[in-house]
Formats: sequence, C-alpha cells, structure tokens
Amino acid sequence: MKKIYLDNHSNTKLEPRVFEAMLPYFKEDYGNPQSLHTLGAKSKDAVDKARAQTAELIGAKDSEIYFTSNGSEANNLAVKGACEAQKQKGKHIIVSSIEHFSVLNSAKRLEQSGFEVIHLPVDKHGFVSSDVLKNAVRPDTILISIQHANPEIGTIQDMENLTKIAKEKNILFHADAVCTVGVMPVNVEKLGVDLLTLSGTSFYGPKGASALYVKKGVRIIPQIDGGVQENGRRAGAENVPAIVGLGAACEFAKIEMEENNKKIIKLRDRLIRELPQKIDYIYLNGHPEARLPGNVNFSVEFVEGEGMLLFLDAKGIYITSGSACTSKALKMSHVLSAINIDAAVAQGSLTMTLSKYNIDEDIDYILQELPVIVKRLRDMSPLYAYFKKTGNRKEAGPGTNYEH
Amino acid sequence: MKKIYLDNHSNTKLEPRVFEAMLPYFKEDYGNPQSLHTLGAKSKDAVDKARAQTAELIGAKDSEIYFTSNGSEANNLAVKGACEAQKQKGKHIIVSSIEHFSVLNSAKRLEQSGFEVIHLPVDKHGFVSSDVLKNAVRPDTILISIQHANPEIGTIQDMENLTKIAKEKNILFHADAVCTVGVMPVNVEKLGVDLLTLSGTSFYGPKGASALYVKKGVRIIPQIDGGVQENGRRAGAENVPAIVGLGAACEFAKIEMEENNKKIIKLRDRLIRELPQKIDYIYLNGHPEARLPGNVNFSVEFVEGEGMLLFLDAKGIYITSGSACTSKALKMSHVLSAINIDAAVAQGSLTMTLSKYNIDEDIDYILQELPVIVKRLRDMSPLYAYFKKTGNRKEAGPGTNYEH
Repeated sequence: MKKIYLDNHSNTKLEPRVFEAMLPYFKEDYGNPQSLHTLGAKSKDAVDKARAQTAELIGAKDSEIYFTSNGSEANNLAVKGACEAQKQKGKHIIVSSIEHFSVLNSAKRLEQSGFEVIHLPVDKHGFVSSDVLKNAVRPDTILISIQHANPEIGTIQDMENLTKIAKEKNILFHADAVCTVGVMPVNVEKLGVDLLTLSGTSFYGPKGASALYVKKGVRIIPQIDGGVQENGRRAGAENVPAIVGLGAACEFAKIEMEENNKKIIKLRDRLIRELPQKIDYIYLNGHPEARLPGNVNFSVEFVEGEGMLLFLDAKGIYITSGSACTSKALKMSHVLSAINIDAAVAQGSLTMTLSKYNIDEDIDYILQELPVIVKRLRDMSPLYAYFKKTGNRKEAGPGTNYEH
Repeated sequence: MKKIYLDNHSNTKLEPRVFEAMLPYFKEDYGNPQSLHTLGAKSKDAVDKARAQTAELIGAKDSEIYFTSNGSEANNLAVKGACEAQKQKGKHIIVSSIEHFSVLNSAKRLEQSGFEVIHLPVDKHGFVSSDVLKNAVRPDTILISIQHANPEIGTIQDMENLTKIAKEKNILFHADAVCTVGVMPVNVEKLGVDLLTLSGTSFYGPKGASALYVKKGVRIIPQIDGGVQENGRRAGAENVPAIVGLGAACEFAKIEMEENNKKIIKLRDRLIRELPQKIDYIYLNGHPEARLPGNVNFSVEFVEGEGMLLFLDAKGIYITSGSACTSKALKMSHVLSAINIDAAVAQGSLTMTLSKYNIDEDIDYILQELPVIVKRLRDMSPLYAYFKKTGNRKEAGPGTNYEH
C-alpha cells in the first residue's frame, strides 16, 4: 500500500543528512558540554556550531539563540519569561486568538498571578488587523505574542505591520515562528521581533531541539532553573545530538528551501485547485495567497473530519483534522472557531501539510481517493440527505461563513 | 593514545542496543504521538511502551511516569510544581544543602514568590540526619526534597528514615534519584517518596529524556503549559526516539545492573584502596560504604583540581572536578563546602565516576599516571614547598576537616 504523509505541521520526516550529522553524538562523542575535558569540549563545540547555524538562518547573533527541548517550551519561556521579567512595568499581555496552546496556556497561567490577557480577534482569513492591535495596546501592555503563520489554516501574518506598532509603543513582541523558520525566509531584524520561537521539526530536523531567539538586551526569567547552560537562561543537560541536528537542518534549509518550495507550492496548488473540482460543498480555509507553502486546509461540508481521517488512513494517507496538539482533546479547533467557520462545517475540516518528500503521484492518489471517501461518508449522513431533499442546511444558523 | 572516560556522572556513553531501539524513530516511524493516524499511533505506542518500562524499573504505575527533557527539568517540575499546587497549605520548603542546582535554584526561584526555604546541613559524609530533618519540619512545611545519592561524593542517603518523617507529618517528599535509578535497585514504594526524578543519562540511555515519578493523587502544577501531552502535566511535542531510548535503558538496567555493579564496585574499590598507597595527603570524600557503585572522590592536597584535570586530559583520562553543571561556574563545589572540606584542600578535588565500559587496565593506567601528575603539580606548588620546609599548612585554619 502507498504511504502518503501529509501531516508535516505535526512533524516532518528527519532528513537523512541531518541524521548523519547527529550520529557521532550518539556514538563516540558522548561528552557533556559542561565537562572541561576533551570529550566535553567536543560536545560544547558542536553545540556552539549549531547555535551559529541557527542564528545564521534567521539573521541573529549566536548569543541570541537559546536552545529548548521543543517549540512549546520555547513559547513558554518567551511568554512567561518576558512577562515575569517585566511585571514591575505592567501586567497586560496581548495574544491573538489563533495562537498555539503553548502561548495561550502560558498566558492563562500568568493570569493566575495577576496578569491580564487580551485575545485579539482575527478576520475570516486569520489575519490580525493592525488597527485592532493598535486599539488593544494600553500603557501597561508588556508583551504582544502573535504567531508568524498558523499551522492549521496556513495564513502568514503581515508581521512588519504588527511589530511596527509594538516598536512605536516600546512593547516586546514575540512571534511563534515554528511554521515559518526553515520553511520560508525569516529575518528577525526585518520582522522586527524581540523574541521568536523556531523548531527543527518543521523543516526536517530532529525531535528534541527547538530554539528561542531573544534579542540582545531583552530580559527573560528562566523557566528551568539550575546550572549555567544556555547562558543561565535554560538550565539542564544539553541534548547534544538533537541540537546538532537542528543546526544541520538550519544549514540545509538556508540552501534548499527555495527549491523545495517551488515544488511544494505546485503540489499544494494542485490540491487547492483540483479538490473543489471533484468534491462539491468544499471550502478552503485561510488566505489563498498569504499561505504557508505546504498548507492545504479545507472544510468539507456534511462529513466528519474524523471519518475522513480514518478512511484516508486506511488508504495510507496521513492527515490531521485540527491542530496536532489538540487532536486528542476532542474539541473543535479554536482556529476555525476564530475565523468564524460554522461549527457543523468545521467538523469536516481537513489539514494536509506537504513536505519536500511529496511527489506528484501523491496528489494524484489523494485526488482519486478523497472524493470516493467523501461520497461514502455523505451517503451515510442524515444531514446530507436532508440537504439533498430540502436544499436546507438543517443546523446552519444565519450569518454563518461558508465560502470565503 | 588511551581514552579512559571517568565522567559518568555527567553523562554515560549510550548503550548500542539502546540506540538500535531508537533507530526506527529517526527513520520510518517519525509520526507525532498526538496525531490520530497510523504513523502517530505507532509513536504513541512506542511512548506508552517506554512509560511501562520506566515504571517497571522503579515499581511505579505507568500513569505515574511523566517524561521530561532532562533531570533538571524534572527537578523543576517536582519542586516548583508541587509547591505551587500546595501554596494554600503552606509555603515552607526543606532541601538539603548538597542538592543539585536544579533543586536549589528552583527553591530559590520560589523564594521570590513568598516561599521560605531551609537548607539542611549534612554531616562529614554528606548524610542528612533524620533528627535534623525532624527539627526542621514546621506545620507549614509542604515539601521536602533530598537527593537519593550525591553525584559528586557518591553518598547514598538512608532514605527510608527520612521519608518516614515526611509520611508521619503528611508532607510531600521528592527525591532526586538521577544518580541511583538504573544504577542500583530503586523502588518508589520502598523508598516512600511521592516524587522522584530519574535520568537515562546515568545508565546508558540517551540525552533528551528523563522522567518524574508522581505518586497517584499528588497534585503538581505543570511548568510547560500547552497541549495535552503527558496527561496535561508537561506540554510539548514528545521526543519519541529519546523516550524510547530511556525505556530501553530501563529494561536493560533492570536485567544487567547487578552484574555491572559487581565489576564496577571492584574497579572503584581498587582506586579507593590503591590511590592513597601511591599518593600521600589524599583524602576520600563521601562515605566509604554507603556509596554509589561507580563513585570515587578524592581531595588531593597541595594541587589544583583543574591542573589534574588538564594533565589527565592530556593523557586521555576524562574526569571532573566539581559537579558537571557547575564546573563552568568556576565556584568551589557547594557539596565539598557542605561536608566542611577546607577550601584549599577542596581545590584539589577529583571526581572519577566509573561505568560498565571501564576495565581493569583503565585502573592500572590511572594508578600509573595520576601519581606522576600529582608529583609534577606539587613540585610547582609554593604551598607544598612551604609545607615540606616547615611542616605547616600555610592556609589551613583550625578545626578544618582533612581526613574523614
């Protein structure tokens, strides 16, 4: 059976050349970077090199890169760390309503110790408006956290317009850029951010290493206390092989991302163009152009996402329905809710995220299988039967947002 | 040149069979455990298996194991998590003065939000006395955190006598057991702990995965907020290969630890016995019997630990002087200070920690090289020259503790 992996926002397949770079650190070079002997120094050098490679990819200084175990940890460090460091200045935090749960729940945690959090609405494409942001800012606002792009609907924010407002008001700006760094060109200076989260798992790096960019001069309170690792901002033994892998992935991304994207965007656009030719009552979520190279997100009316996921899985096609971290929470995606998708229609949402490993034949196969599955599921659906008979959407209230 | 690694408390060399177990998760099985498709489910099953293997090693239930990225993170989660969850009950915390910095600095962080921390003294061997603990307990004490064994001087606490006190007073007890789990038999029920930290890096597991045991019913506040991973107690994408490696290391440890220790203890005891036969003014730190199987810690008078470390390094012998996480802080070991070693003598401290990979010839080589290095360093030492001439220890004050 074919195996077609279209869940690259949850995790990309490790690049074999990245794994090769990691190998010595699983074998002969097993020293702890904090040890002063030769074997420790070799590990320290490897971590330093990875730090330089990571910094290089985003136009940062080496000393501005702090390694963490994953993107969620980096988001926690950014949001909690920056707010705790500035609590004398103010206690007001602004986040968008489509952030990753590691940002939303970090902010929620801070609310328990007296911080106040505003969740900015987004428009139907998932954009945060700069006017809305400007109006939300208060004299006691100390942090704005808005993701660079959304993993689920793929919308890429117009960051420079947003960070400009933070700069004018002298407020720290954090961007969760897990979906964009290594996937498209990202430069921290150009974006205008003070804090930025990146993860190698988005661009063929290993699990176990992500990073937080902290602009020189920005204070953050460590969230893991202990030894002197990561310049005292993130204690704990360094995961050397994973960090080495992240560095290598950054280096490959810098060189190869453009070529990869040419191919990936073609495949993405085939799905976006051709699926609606084969399936009716199917609606693209997110912006058609300002969109991650590999992201395809459709709501398919009159079917359940879970049903599509399982039938596709049986055909060897691996997709997701709702964000990776929440799929087991069994709640409707907060992102689809924020862009005002009708709850019934959102049930049929489908996220397909492509990688450099996908080929044209994968798309042929999906275009062949998905319409059959949708037909089968609709044939079992009483809602669809009712609609076919009456022309009415039984559950749909007024003002719902189907097509956009 | 020979390469003799004696820094196993900083990190052990990864067991090749453990690496074999991890391999598929770097290659074909790259799914995110939170994804509902087949590839996600394979990763989830792998994490579940590792959880069972880890639980099995320490006599816990699977549901009591929470994976973290390293021991420091687990210690932070235990200390901060348990105290934050109980702050309505009290704000008094008891730690020993020889804890790892991830415990000490977590406690310090809590002091900033109104908690009060008592640092228990230890005796000359590094033992916490149960009477001292009993006297430190107050009605508002909510957590006692005492490590099972100390990585630097190797002393193994008489835990059951300490946890008994916590039980009587209904106070949570956390043990940092990074040095003991996988190294000697540890059973959480028998020890009587509520929280226990373990790390695979102590017993031939990979970097990137450790675990916190949380007894059923014990509440902790997550330190990384976000998705539903680790039952909501530690968010962030799971490092599947590292977790699989930790599980495999636990399984091997259970079967092989006894045989390994027979060999390791023999080598350790040769060093402890024979080094003082070849070097004078050398003092064993820690308890002679209640000692980690692989731990050798000496203070060598009239020399600098750094000098020994560097000369030994040049001979291919990798040791440490002071705890791994602090060696770059360039401060005198807080552990040697707590057992009342004279500051000048502590400068010549030397930690050699053995593993199953060490052989008799390694010990021969150290016994051959170290005395030569010590002689060379002493020949350069004005303190030693003064002592030889006058019989006086220039810097030594009254009441200092040389030999014990």
